[in-house]
Amino acid sequence: METFFSFLEKRVDDCSSLLCVGLDPFVDDLQEPTAASALEFCLRIIKATAPYAAAFKPNAAFFEVFGAEGWTALKQVIDAVKEESDRLGSHIPVILDAKRGDIASSAEGYARSAFKVLGADCITLNPYLGRDSIEPFLQDREKGVFLLCKTSNPDAGDLQDLILVTGESLHIHIASLAQAWNTKNNIGLVVGATYPETLARVRLAAPDLWFLVPGVGAQGGDLASALKAGLRQDGKGMLINVSRSIAHADDPRLAAAGLRDSILQIKGSMVGRD
Amino acid sequence: METFFSFLEKRVDDCSSLLCVGLDPFVDDLQEPTAASALEFCLRIIKATAPYAAAFKPNAAFFEVFGAEGWTALKQVIDAVKEESDRLGSHIPVILDAKRGDIASSAEGYARSAFKVLGADCITLNPYLGRDSIEPFLQDREKGVFLLCKTSNPDAGDLQDLILVTGESLHIHIASLAQAWNTKNNIGLVVGATYPETLARVRLAAPDLWFLVPGVGAQGGDLASALKAGLRQDGKGMLINVSRSIAHADDPRLAAAGLRDSILQIKGSMVGRD
Repeated sequence: METFFSFLEKRVDDCSSLLCVGLDPFVDDLQEPTAASALEFCLRIIKATAPYAAAFKPNAAFFEVFGAEGWTALKQVIDAVKEESDRLGSHIPVILDAKRGDIASSAEGYARSAFKVLGADCITLNPYLGRDSIEPFLQDREKGVFLLCKTSNPDAGDLQDLILVTGESLHIHIASLAQAWNTKNNIGLVVGATYPETLARVRLAAPDLWFLVPGVGAQGGDLASALKAGLRQDGKGMLINVSRSIAHADDPRLAAAGLRDSILQIKGSMVGRD
Repeated sequence: METFFSFLEKRVDDCSSLLCVGLDPFVDDLQEPTAASALEFCLRIIKATAPYAAAFKPNAAFFEVFGAEGWTALKQVIDAVKEESDRLGSHIPVILDAKRGDIASSAEGYARSAFKVLGADCITLNPYLGRDSIEPFLQDREKGVFLLCKTSNPDAGDLQDLILVTGESLHIHIASLAQAWNTKNNIGLVVGATYPETLARVRLAAPDLWFLVPGVGAQGGDLASALKAGLRQDGKGMLINVSRSIAHADDPRLAAAGLRDSILQIKGSMVGRD
């Protein structure tokens, strides 16, 4: 039976890439502060990088800032990824980076908004409200979630690194819960690249899960260290998200192709060492 | 200097009410599944209950489900509260229940969306990403946040009740952090009414903060127990959120007036006991 991660793995095989291209139309990076300009910014990146993208990740915040017009643009961005997928004959999943988290009918509303209205394949979620806040997003196993585990910002540790009475940290506890909850192959984890030793520990707690990994490049995380710490035994299990280094490149296509190749090269060197 | 909570306390004094009226246009409760119907649903409640409302709390999930049109409706709902405020000559704060949580420029985007684009006075936030994810929402002290502390859903305890190595629970730790972070009088906490003993413990950890309290009524929390457990010494510090019991009442005006009066009566009986 197909699941979100079986679709993702098919795409990873099709493009030999673990690169997730972030679509962050930050207002200061736009030609003008409008939803139309945000859309144009994203379409340019999508068209240039689709052949090298295992997934695309639009961040809802940068669209919400334009109100209703921003939501229309967000839907158009997701539609554009579908068109590129059709053109390439390979389904490129869209991960909506929305970091939602709510309960009961509100959670159902967010799931419906992300998967049915916007048409995303996957969404990032904040796990703080517990399992019943996640469930409404898991019903359709062809749709997936990445739960925030350890993020890449300076104060991520305020809560995420708290040590529980059991001796494990909160983020490792979340990794273990996610590994246990993943009965439909549609739960992954967000784990920042900024601390490779953390990536390695989360990999031990969640040996099977896919990680969505922000923080490489502009945020200072090292690509090789991250891959070595977090890849699964099968050489998959990590989506390396890059946004600014691609968007700000003179040629986003070359930047994405280069990142795809760097990942392949590092993976190759790891196999060589075994 | 005015702050979000000084505005709220002024409104609480004006209407002798600690009632927060939830605006949850759940699709099954609407005449038809459209943004126009969601707007109509909310406008009816706002007009009927404004005199008794210390605040209004629209939940973003129920609007997002209608895409761009939903966002237009959400802005119209917030505008309608402003019109009622003008009519009554008393500013009724709007708390956007969006449970956002993101970092850096994304957090700035959500803050701008909530406060500038939509025009809300306050937003609910998920604290899992740490202090730097909250900061962008605190810059203007006339705008406020309620951080999720202990929610009212069945699985809230999955993470929120975890015991730290210090012996305190995660939600109590968050309450202590929020009390310490509240240097501009614009941080409160979301604490469910379902466990009054929890409310009492959070009050000990955060003696000064306002609590936004869901879970009374439809979710089973008892009003008197909640107020006795969570009110501050000054008889303020709790906003009792009610959504369904008001929206589903034959006469929402009477339902809201009745809740306002019940709260007053319970407060009166508490003073009498001292």
